[in-house]
Amino acid sequence: MLSAPSSSLAARHARLRAALAASHLDALVLTHLPNIAYVSNFAGSTAIAVLDARRLYLLSDFRYSAAILAMLASGNAPPDTEFVRVDGSYEEGLAALLDRLDAQAIGLEAAHVSWKRLDWWRRRLDASLAGDAGERAARGRCLVATDALVERERMVKDAHEIAVLRDAAARLSTVARDILRDQVVRAGRSEQEIAGEVDWRMKQAGFSRPAFDTIVASGPNAALPHAQPTTRLVAADELVVLDFGGVLDGYCVDLTRTVAIGEPGVEARRIHAAVREAQRRAMAAIRAGVATDAVDAAARGYLAECGLADAFGHSTGHGLGLEVHEEPRLGMRRTVGPAPLALEAGVVCTVEPGAYVPGIGGVRLEDDVLVTADGVEVLTDVPFDARLDG
Amino acid sequence: MLSAPSSSLAARHARLRAALAASHLDALVLTHLPNIAYVSNFAGSTAIAVLDARRLYLLSDFRYSAAILAMLASGNAPPDTEFVRVDGSYEEGLAALLDRLDAQAIGLEAAHVSWKRLDWWRRRLDASLAGDAGERAARGRCLVATDALVERERMVKDAHEIAVLRDAAARLSTVARDILRDQVVRAGRSEQEIAGEVDWRMKQAGFSRPAFDTIVASGPNAALPHAQPTTRLVAADELVVLDFGGVLDGYCVDLTRTVAIGEPGVEARRIHAAVREAQRRAMAAIRAGVATDAVDAAARGYLAECGLADAFGHSTGHGLGLEVHEEPRLGMRRTVGPAPLALEAGVVCTVEPGAYVPGIGGVRLEDDVLVTADGVEVLTDVPFDARLDG
Repeated sequence: MLSAPSSSLAARHARLRAALAASHLDALVLTHLPNIAYVSNFAGSTAIAVLDARRLYLLSDFRYSAAILAMLASGNAPPDTEFVRVDGSYEEGLAALLDRLDAQAIGLEAAHVSWKRLDWWRRRLDASLAGDAGERAARGRCLVATDALVERERMVKDAHEIAVLRDAAARLSTVARDILRDQVVRAGRSEQEIAGEVDWRMKQAGFSRPAFDTIVASGPNAALPHAQPTTRLVAADELVVLDFGGVLDGYCVDLTRTVAIGEPGVEARRIHAAVREAQRRAMAAIRAGVATDAVDAAARGYLAECGLADAFGHSTGHGLGLEVHEEPRLGMRRTVGPAPLALEAGVVCTVEPGAYVPGIGGVRLEDDVLVTADGVEVLTDVPFDARLDG
Repeated sequence: MLSAPSSSLAARHARLRAALAASHLDALVLTHLPNIAYVSNFAGSTAIAVLDARRLYLLSDFRYSAAILAMLASGNAPPDTEFVRVDGSYEEGLAALLDRLDAQAIGLEAAHVSWKRLDWWRRRLDASLAGDAGERAARGRCLVATDALVERERMVKDAHEIAVLRDAAARLSTVARDILRDQVVRAGRSEQEIAGEVDWRMKQAGFSRPAFDTIVASGPNAALPHAQPTTRLVAADELVVLDFGGVLDGYCVDLTRTVAIGEPGVEARRIHAAVREAQRRAMAAIRAGVATDAVDAAARGYLAECGLADAFGHSTGHGLGLEVHEEPRLGMRRTVGPAPLALEAGVVCTVEPGAYVPGIGGVRLEDDVLVTADGVEVLTDVPFDARLDG
């Protein structure tokens, strides 16, 4: 279970209840685990949460009963919460609760409820469906699609979350500095062996688990942005991309450095310098009020000036929190879809331009930042590779 | 990327195409990553697959392009496959492909497509919806809910999968035996420290990652079936539940032993013996043709005879494969819902009864088995704790 204090949880509930009232919803059903964790501190693998105007209902099963009851008796209990133990199916457990609450306008997380469950609940609850609150029929039971209600709240971190993320970023930086100092990445070791040591060091530093599969991509593999570690032995005179992150008290941090083994050559050094400057420019563009695509453009434009436009195919960054990839996405403006978000103070995100050149390899540099009113607080603190900087 | 040979993939495609034809579907859209992996060997984090009567289309983005193209050129390529690179949204990428294929009756995985995506595709493709193939309108484009089409195929493992699972279970057994021999679990170490060492040893043994968060639950924590490792130091004279698993070439194995530290007492020994006998009885009940709930009843009935009915709240086992929890579930017969499945030769599953008694602790014992025509092949091979057996 997570450790957000009851006061943080109460503030989250209050903001969500305001959103419920604005949408004329009697209850909001949460089926996405990170959203459930956000309102309840629940950190297991299976649960449903229901928030109404007065209470939070946390549905889970035998496996988590004892842990939930202990949590509800602690200082990290979500306020006004009732644990509803599910002994049969979660679908029926939820339906029975909604019957008991006599909720009529019921919000479901449209991005996180499957067609199968939707159809089952629609029949069982004898409800109509509405694509959003505006479409809802005036009377009778209705399942209303909600869009990112909780994700929007999660985007701006509260004091507890910022403290956890600062701590996590500091620990991850220590792990990274130690890895550089101890030459964990050296010729003759396999990518998988290096990745195993990185994961072990994260555990030692207190992370509960890696935030994603650690990437160790050497030589030609470094040209694959999301390479999986292989049995390939790191060789002399090449680049190695090292991208890893950990989960601390539910929150994810994420860091990338590109390490030079021996003398990887003039072009590798040029690409590294270009990516580093692109990262500097992206960071310089960040402050509250700036559109996310403007941050991306700052990095992407510079890489294009360096002739590396085609070498940078992913976004410049992503939000960090209870998920390792969450809003906001710092990417290119799309021709369709919603307009890019504006950054707000309290957003925590990565800044990670890269360049991937088949035949030469790849470079990515990634740090985690807290957006402030007038700029950024960089949460990670790890040297770049001196052999590449020299 | 995974390593199923092209011949295995071709056989899987053939079986799925027969299911498509039986449901009068022109195309099946796969959005669940384990299902995508099953038909394509794709092992990244984001993709969609579309199978029609002639081809497999694999949609993914920049991050995975190079790895996919390399895989398609290898001996592990899915046959008749076209890589469709997605540069904008996956939703639009899929819609554009379906336009190009002029598919009319399009199956979607109802358990794995969200309400949000369903609604978007319905509008963009100007399609009607059908809860199953029988409901489909005679003409025009239609999105048809499919239920576990791929999961059903995945339940019975092919020769390649059985070979990988045998190898994985043997490696996990070696890790477990070494952990017991080296007394990794000893008084004075924290649960988290022990879990970190378990994970490190799994990496050393060649697993790409833990199959789930490793459980190290000591003393009172052992009474929580899904405990998360804490900073609690393991103490003398208690039980420690150690539940861990790894992913090898995409496939998951899973093992639990309960270790005695010092002299945990007469009642702990009695519970351990009861769970061990319950596991023996469940294993003895397994063979092709037996209903999954009969296996569960064999374990549960014995624990009830021992006065431990209330102490065993979870299922007796679950299928293993590309997911660590997959069909079949070896649980109690439900009063509602579909009838329990019958086991088939080629199913690989866990057998893991447990008993959890607040104040005393808990015991769980878990092995992985391959179901055969006349019994089981036990894939894991790890001693039980001699101090508890003595």
